[in-house]
Amino acid sequence: MQTTGKNISLAVIKRLPRYYRYLGDILDDGITRISSNEISLRMDITASQIRQDLNNFGCFGQQGYGYNTELLYGEIKKILGLEKQYSMIIIGAGNIGQALANYINFQKRGFNFVALFDANPKLIGLTIRGIEIYDVDKLPEYLAATRVDIAVLTLPKNSATEIARIVIDGGVKGIWNFSNIDIKTPNDVKVENVHLTDSLMTLSYKLNEKEILSRFGASL
Amino acid sequence: MQTTGKNISLAVIKRLPRYYRYLGDILDDGITRISSNEISLRMDITASQIRQDLNNFGCFGQQGYGYNTELLYGEIKKILGLEKQYSMIIIGAGNIGQALANYINFQKRGFNFVALFDANPKLIGLTIRGIEIYDVDKLPEYLAATRVDIAVLTLPKNSATEIARIVIDGGVKGIWNFSNIDIKTPNDVKVENVHLTDSLMTLSYKLNEKEILSRFGASL
Repeated sequence: MQTTGKNISLAVIKRLPRYYRYLGDILDDGITRISSNEISLRMDITASQIRQDLNNFGCFGQQGYGYNTELLYGEIKKILGLEKQYSMIIIGAGNIGQALANYINFQKRGFNFVALFDANPKLIGLTIRGIEIYDVDKLPEYLAATRVDIAVLTLPKNSATEIARIVIDGGVKGIWNFSNIDIKTPNDVKVENVHLTDSLMTLSYKLNEKEILSRFGASL
Repeated sequence: MQTTGKNISLAVIKRLPRYYRYLGDILDDGITRISSNEISLRMDITASQIRQDLNNFGCFGQQGYGYNTELLYGEIKKILGLEKQYSMIIIGAGNIGQALANYINFQKRGFNFVALFDANPKLIGLTIRGIEIYDVDKLPEYLAATRVDIAVLTLPKNSATEIARIVIDGGVKGIWNFSNIDIKTPNDVKVENVHLTDSLMTLSYKLNEKEILSRFGASL
């Protein structure tokens, strides 16, 4: 199993936002105290898995009491780094880039878009929710002048590698990559991928799994 | 580790689209024959993992020869169910829904959008790339009259559960879920999630991991 540098497995990390989402719903339902068994029923994860995951971060519930929902929600918020504000740029102001810029919920979580970049002269100078689209050629000088925490890559794969190099050289430590290519980065630059085409192919695999396995004579 | 009904682990399934993507690039580079070691170098997966993954589906390379790139690409295409055509509808014609409808690469892979649905009267009747936006109230009768393979949910979480029930009742077997909620389905209905907010939170976790682990005194 893939692990991060310090022994928290990627599988655990991937579950953290889900815990946060469910605890938010549980809070919205007015439930102030919850056991790992009750969380388990809602989330379809075993109670022991939940306890083990949360223990990684010292979030111990009390035997016979369970977790204080609000406290646990707050802890996970801190664990996810959601007490901070992040400045984000989008590179590639096409369909997906524009959709992300228009999505206001990210801002509510502390993720603030400050600029978009594109190579298309028809887009340069336009604004989306007041956020300006700049010429991608201006990206290095923009990064030299402005602190950017996260660069969102929503551009074709053939330019993604070069643009990733520019944002890394410009000091950006987080890349949210929607381009259909894997980006290689130094250890201190973190990448999170949203490969939409891969995701859709995974769905088509699942839809055909029975037929595929019998056709390919897998020894199962 | 989570497994599908028949013993192919979810981790393997998630790697298949990546193999397909890389083999496409390798073909584009004019490489007709490739060893698992060479694939390993490109993909950052061990060669033995690659052989093991492909063996699940009977894709054996030849000792000392490796894989015929085009044949292997074709096999994985079949495994992913990409020889078929899929008809898809999008429910929720907001930013993300429109962006997906505008994205022509899905169609090249055999995923064809046939309709969008929304509750907003300002959107109903408009078209995106010739694909009409219908009143979401018409969804049940649309599904009764038209075969739909995949429903894409790009709508707020408070309506996602009800809409999922309608598409499942209407015979849809695949749900590509962008709504920020987990959808429960019968065994024969497959779901693939794209939780954008979860993904962004995973990135913020990664950006803060060192600090978080020391602050929370995790015993690592």
